[in-house]
Amino acid sequence: MKGEIINVGTEILIGDILNTNAQFIAKELSSAGISVYFQTTVGDNPDRLMSVLKDSIKRSDLIILTGGLGPTQDDLTKETVAKLLGLEMEMHTESYDKMMSFFNKIASKMTQNNLKQAYMPVGAHIIPNENGTAPGVLIESDEKTIIMLPGPPRELIPMFRDFVMIYLHGKSPDKFYSNYYKVSGIGESALEDMLIDIIDKQTNPTIATYAKPDEVLLRVTANAKTEDKAKKLLDEMDSIITDRLKDNIYAREDISLNNLVARLLIDTNTTISLAESCTGGLITSRLTETSGISKCLHSAIVCYSNDSKEKYLGVKKSTLEKYGAVSKECAEEMLRGLLENNNTDMAIATTGIAGPTGGTEDKPVGLVYVGIAYGDVIQVEKYNISGNRQRVQLKTANIALNLIRKQLVNL
Amino acid sequence: MKGEIINVGTEILIGDILNTNAQFIAKELSSAGISVYFQTTVGDNPDRLMSVLKDSIKRSDLIILTGGLGPTQDDLTKETVAKLLGLEMEMHTESYDKMMSFFNKIASKMTQNNLKQAYMPVGAHIIPNENGTAPGVLIESDEKTIIMLPGPPRELIPMFRDFVMIYLHGKSPDKFYSNYYKVSGIGESALEDMLIDIIDKQTNPTIATYAKPDEVLLRVTANAKTEDKAKKLLDEMDSIITDRLKDNIYAREDISLNNLVARLLIDTNTTISLAESCTGGLITSRLTETSGISKCLHSAIVCYSNDSKEKYLGVKKSTLEKYGAVSKECAEEMLRGLLENNNTDMAIATTGIAGPTGGTEDKPVGLVYVGIAYGDVIQVEKYNISGNRQRVQLKTANIALNLIRKQLVNL
Repeated sequence: MKGEIINVGTEILIGDILNTNAQFIAKELSSAGISVYFQTTVGDNPDRLMSVLKDSIKRSDLIILTGGLGPTQDDLTKETVAKLLGLEMEMHTESYDKMMSFFNKIASKMTQNNLKQAYMPVGAHIIPNENGTAPGVLIESDEKTIIMLPGPPRELIPMFRDFVMIYLHGKSPDKFYSNYYKVSGIGESALEDMLIDIIDKQTNPTIATYAKPDEVLLRVTANAKTEDKAKKLLDEMDSIITDRLKDNIYAREDISLNNLVARLLIDTNTTISLAESCTGGLITSRLTETSGISKCLHSAIVCYSNDSKEKYLGVKKSTLEKYGAVSKECAEEMLRGLLENNNTDMAIATTGIAGPTGGTEDKPVGLVYVGIAYGDVIQVEKYNISGNRQRVQLKTANIALNLIRKQLVNL
Repeated sequence: MKGEIINVGTEILIGDILNTNAQFIAKELSSAGISVYFQTTVGDNPDRLMSVLKDSIKRSDLIILTGGLGPTQDDLTKETVAKLLGLEMEMHTESYDKMMSFFNKIASKMTQNNLKQAYMPVGAHIIPNENGTAPGVLIESDEKTIIMLPGPPRELIPMFRDFVMIYLHGKSPDKFYSNYYKVSGIGESALEDMLIDIIDKQTNPTIATYAKPDEVLLRVTANAKTEDKAKKLLDEMDSIITDRLKDNIYAREDISLNNLVARLLIDTNTTISLAESCTGGLITSRLTETSGISKCLHSAIVCYSNDSKEKYLGVKKSTLEKYGAVSKECAEEMLRGLLENNNTDMAIATTGIAGPTGGTEDKPVGLVYVGIAYGDVIQVEKYNISGNRQRVQLKTANIALNLIRKQLVNL
């Protein structure tokens, strides 16, 4: 099946908003085995929209339009599609009632303009919108399917996932199932290299990666005539992926590493203290994004100077003089200082050279020591991290978060 | 002038990458007074690219293409454009030499594939690429201009700003000048509301906003026959904008608030210590993004628990019992503790309820105290911040950073 995406909106055309809908829809359609050959953005202009529609209906089986369903005179997507297909517009009572009750709820008056949103092309299926006033519209005509959705992503995304995908899967004789993997410690392109042979020949299951800084979501989607067959396909791919990515997979759901580690600490009632030098508070700040962490995280020291390492953590002057602040010995004393002062179950210490200045031949930029104390064990590892200051700090924080994770899940 | 954007790349079409180039180029063209009526994404497929090109050359004067200039057999943008215009391809010696020296520099061998990147349509102007191997190409033909640029934003953006915009401005009989404003403490939509009358009737100067979380860049661009006239237009707009946004404008260049404040501390040789409760290390972590901050920032305490406020900052138990940790009194003692322990020129303290739990009727979620000590003055202000946990932490950090900024620039 050939699909095509048309985003309607002058705000996109003049660059006022970033078109994230096109990527979202493209990815979803690809995972459902639909080939997307064109994405077009056109303004709120009926003539230009009509010219795009005429091209698209010639070359594609499925056309997804976004935007132009609102209440203003500019919003002409439904009307233009109806004209293309020779359909009249009629009042859709259910949408009218729903809109009325929405406006009553927010104690606001429905205007004549809003009424426009309840008019639909004759014979159209209506897609409910739980997060806004403009319903979506689906029309099947001459073997072609045209789907119109509102532009705001918070309305579009749930409508797409809860309705459009189910409709598309339903049109297919097959069943679709997905596995999710959250990966840390490998960048997106390195991850793709590790899976390149299966990505290159992917047909079923399909594999999609969604990258955030130093965190990648991998989605594997299989389809088959029966649930059992689809799951068998997923299981086969699962052993390959698990084997190659090993413990870089930190979750099998879409959760951030910060949030997962904070939840692990909370769920296991593990108290933690931190001494951050080169990461400058980044690890602590990421852990405190999660509500409820206060019962585990009592305090942290950002000990940027040698003085502060001595004063707050009891690192010995002689250690700093003999080995320097960026050393295994210093990291160990930072951990011991934390445990003595705070009596927590776990302690984390980082010290390193984030750069771009401050590196020497012996201790180059990117040299980092990360230490963890847990149970009776104190363990400090040395890392050489490439990249700019931001990347050294980010990677160091992720190494520390992964160390906590591995201790708590006993990897 | 009518412009049109064509993004070539199967990775965009299947949703593997987000098309940020379309927005960037659309915004730049709009600011140069060029109307963009269509944006199209098409895969690395010469037939489909040709069909899009044929439509676009009929309806637009300027076509900007991105992507498909790389070394692989899939990269066919130049070849397809040359075919459309009936131009031969020829070796471009300068590009060849540049590529050779690039590969020598990285001690890597140039392959036959890379050679392809030095072949150009006859008569084309070459746009140098300082950040990659694929040069850009500009062709003028029958009153139409076609510009081809590489896909990676870090290559495209400087090429667009340093070459394409200058070319477009040069084609115009007018001169273009821009003012930049960096704004904090007001969201993008609130900012637009404050300027709605001038944004709505903008023609010259044009106004564009570029939002990051809690930080907005405002660009005002004027054009006129002479530099004097353009600058007069900018000056008129400048007094309106300065008058309305006041000290929410923290810079007149594109710099982050973190980086600006860190630079102010470094440039004024001001030492600082921090005690972060509700912000959990966020302020410190943002300051330490800037290299060189270690001479100003010796240490910071993330004092999440009452115990740690007593131990590391000397906050009195009686204060915590009488007023609670989220109070003006506690913030003041946190500041005094910092100054006594660290002897820094400046101290910053935050304490509040980030939520979503932990709020009471007296002290609701979003109640935050931010304190600053500088010179002989200790000053604590109370804020009520709406929004989720992340927003409360982010806004609190920005309030603190703005307090530092205002002290250091004597606002």
